[in-house]
Amino acid sequence: MKAFDFIGSYRIPKPRKIGITMMLDKGLGLNALNDLMEVSGEYIDLAKFGWCTSALHDRDLVKDKIDTYLSYDVTPYPGGTLFEVAYMKNKFSEFLDESDKLGFTAIEISDGSTVISPEERRNIISETKDRGFTVISEVGKKNPKDDCKLDTEDRVKLINSDINAGSDRILIEAREGGKGIGIYDESGNVKEDEVEILAKTDMEKIIWEAPLKNQQTYLILKFGPNVNLGNIAPDEVTALETMRRGLRGDTLGKLDL
Amino acid sequence: MKAFDFIGSYRIPKPRKIGITMMLDKGLGLNALNDLMEVSGEYIDLAKFGWCTSALHDRDLVKDKIDTYLSYDVTPYPGGTLFEVAYMKNKFSEFLDESDKLGFTAIEISDGSTVISPEERRNIISETKDRGFTVISEVGKKNPKDDCKLDTEDRVKLINSDINAGSDRILIEAREGGKGIGIYDESGNVKEDEVEILAKTDMEKIIWEAPLKNQQTYLILKFGPNVNLGNIAPDEVTALETMRRGLRGDTLGKLDL
Amino acid sequence: MKAFDFIGSYRIPKPRKIGITMMLDKGLGLNALNDLMEVSGEYIDLAKFGWCTSALHDRDLVKDKIDTYLSYDVTPYPGGTLFEVAYMKNKFSEFLDESDKLGFTAIEISDGSTVISPEERRNIISETKDRGFTVISEVGKKNPKDDCKLDTEDRVKLINSDINAGSDRILIEAREGGKGIGIYDESGNVKEDEVEILAKTDMEKIIWEAPLKNQQTYLILKFGPNVNLGNIAPDEVTALETMRRGLRGDTLGKLDL
Repeated sequence: MKAFDFIGSYRIPKPRKIGITMMLDKGLGLNALNDLMEVSGEYIDLAKFGWCTSALHDRDLVKDKIDTYLSYDVTPYPGGTLFEVAYMKNKFSEFLDESDKLGFTAIEISDGSTVISPEERRNIISETKDRGFTVISEVGKKNPKDDCKLDTEDRVKLINSDINAGSDRILIEAREGGKGIGIYDESGNVKEDEVEILAKTDMEKIIWEAPLKNQQTYLILKFGPNVNLGNIAPDEVTALETMRRGLRGDTLGKLDL
Repeated sequence: MKAFDFIGSYRIPKPRKIGITMMLDKGLGLNALNDLMEVSGEYIDLAKFGWCTSALHDRDLVKDKIDTYLSYDVTPYPGGTLFEVAYMKNKFSEFLDESDKLGFTAIEISDGSTVISPEERRNIISETKDRGFTVISEVGKKNPKDDCKLDTEDRVKLINSDINAGSDRILIEAREGGKGIGIYDESGNVKEDEVEILAKTDMEKIIWEAPLKNQQTYLILKFGPNVNLGNIAPDEVTALETMRRGLRGDTLGKLDL
Repeated sequence: MKAFDFIGSYRIPKPRKIGITMMLDKGLGLNALNDLMEVSGEYIDLAKFGWCTSALHDRDLVKDKIDTYLSYDVTPYPGGTLFEVAYMKNKFSEFLDESDKLGFTAIEISDGSTVISPEERRNIISETKDRGFTVISEVGKKNPKDDCKLDTEDRVKLINSDINAGSDRILIEAREGGKGIGIYDESGNVKEDEVEILAKTDMEKIIWEAPLKNQQTYLILKFGPNVNLGNIAPDEVTALETMRRGLRGDTLGKLDL
């Protein structure tokens, strides 16, 4: 039972199809992870081990962390950059094997730092899917100079192609910083036109990376409490959940709950 | 005994009437809270469970956290937004009961996200006071567009009215972000004229929310080491205490200690 | 054994002469410190107890923290401001004694908040060295208004003088914030000309304070994976290590590994 239960706040329970929160874990230790799960495990759906950070940590530690996430029904997965590094080194198969052995149940497929042809991409997605993983594919480039060359039409095409190939979720890239990339301008403000167009694809599958509070607020006010959001910092998970429920000034009284 | 004790640094010990530090807890877990209390429990006077975050956590966890705070002589209290949500739902009495049962010893009364008449506000303050809680009332609006409609004279009036009604402390709203609100401009710089005027009220009762370092530095240099400051992030508590004591470059040699 | 070991990433192991990472500890508790050491102890060479923070903590706690750092081959040392406070109070000798008793194995000598003549500075460095400490000396002023009076030539002179006096490492001051100071402009961008000139001194001894990600990226891309970097926040240590190894988008494929 929650404190102040009479407030009567509600959200779809896990496992959720919509209202997904993806958290960015860039190297939490076990004490911090246990804290986090106890405090807000039920508010986290996906936990990304950011980019290649998991490759710098001991196997046993990574396994312990994965087990902890799974015991709270959080789906852990390695960052897309790790897939890219493995793929470029022709170690895609080893990458899937190791992910499986460690206990990861989802895989992110991205081309943020490399070039992968549309056909290869579709094959990778369906192969990963066939191996039994949940597939999360990411749309966008890590380098703002490359990212801005992708116009909205390109992104829409990629989203649809990924979904056809079997992706369960599409991440809209914003990195950890959330500025000058994808749907955000240099100051981290939302490019409203772009969001409008992307939202016309299969909206329930899209996860908007939204590391900054103004971005989370905008997307919740626009699409409602059950918009899918990603790259949430661990100590912002509770705060985000209050915003989804209209329990913070920014969204209080402004949501259709 | 402290390390490097011969340095001879000093501050008023708890319980303090002035030199109050109010910390913002937006969802700490127990390992982190124990760390914090061991490292800097003696430097924290008040701990606010920010806005409605406590309503998303298990009662037992919230109780454990409250007990931990109390054992270090830190006064815990739920955020003002939670009072506002309860009040709007006609659950003010349940709110006070539950706060009491959980172990909170102070209550924040605010109208940051709602409208409460001056008379209601005075009644709420005195009722809360009569129930035996320490009363902290907040002056300011969460939405910058509403907040800027409050001129300095309005704020002074409200401060004085709250004190007359029985408030023990008056918080000057700045939110977690500290920008474009109350005494801070869009960049988070201090509006000096406004501070001057507000400081002419009962200064010892005022707690300036000052989440950003430049704000803390300004207020300490202007009002001295024992200015009351609030919305301090947990991992900034030690840093703030060094500034109050002239043990950081920003205030070293500049304070009358 | 690391997770995803087949990726084949490599860095010089500790004890390292180059590729040093100095982390800023501004008041970690023991749970957080144990997390950090388990997750990234091998990626940290030096741990600075920022400015005078250690003087606000219990001796036993400080000793426990120091022992933990030492058990992971991390060299702990008190911030330069603490040396300055002790020196100004004519307690330099007590300062070295207490540092030794607590277990610190390095000492930072700075004049960021005070004035020390070149001759005194050389004497302090060699005296500290003679006492058996590793000596880290810092070049730069805490107050941007004072810091900008130091021109590049002054800095080069000081670096060379410190090295001649026995300093093991030279820190280029950037504070915790990294803006408007030393080699960084008001926005935290790198002043490239200044870096070029300072790099012509004994580069292997220089540690660039680089608290912000764009600064770390710039310096790694310019000087390679084994540039010495300092004032790294605890939860950025793993992230920095991925950048050094070309395992994050910012440096992937751009380093000579």
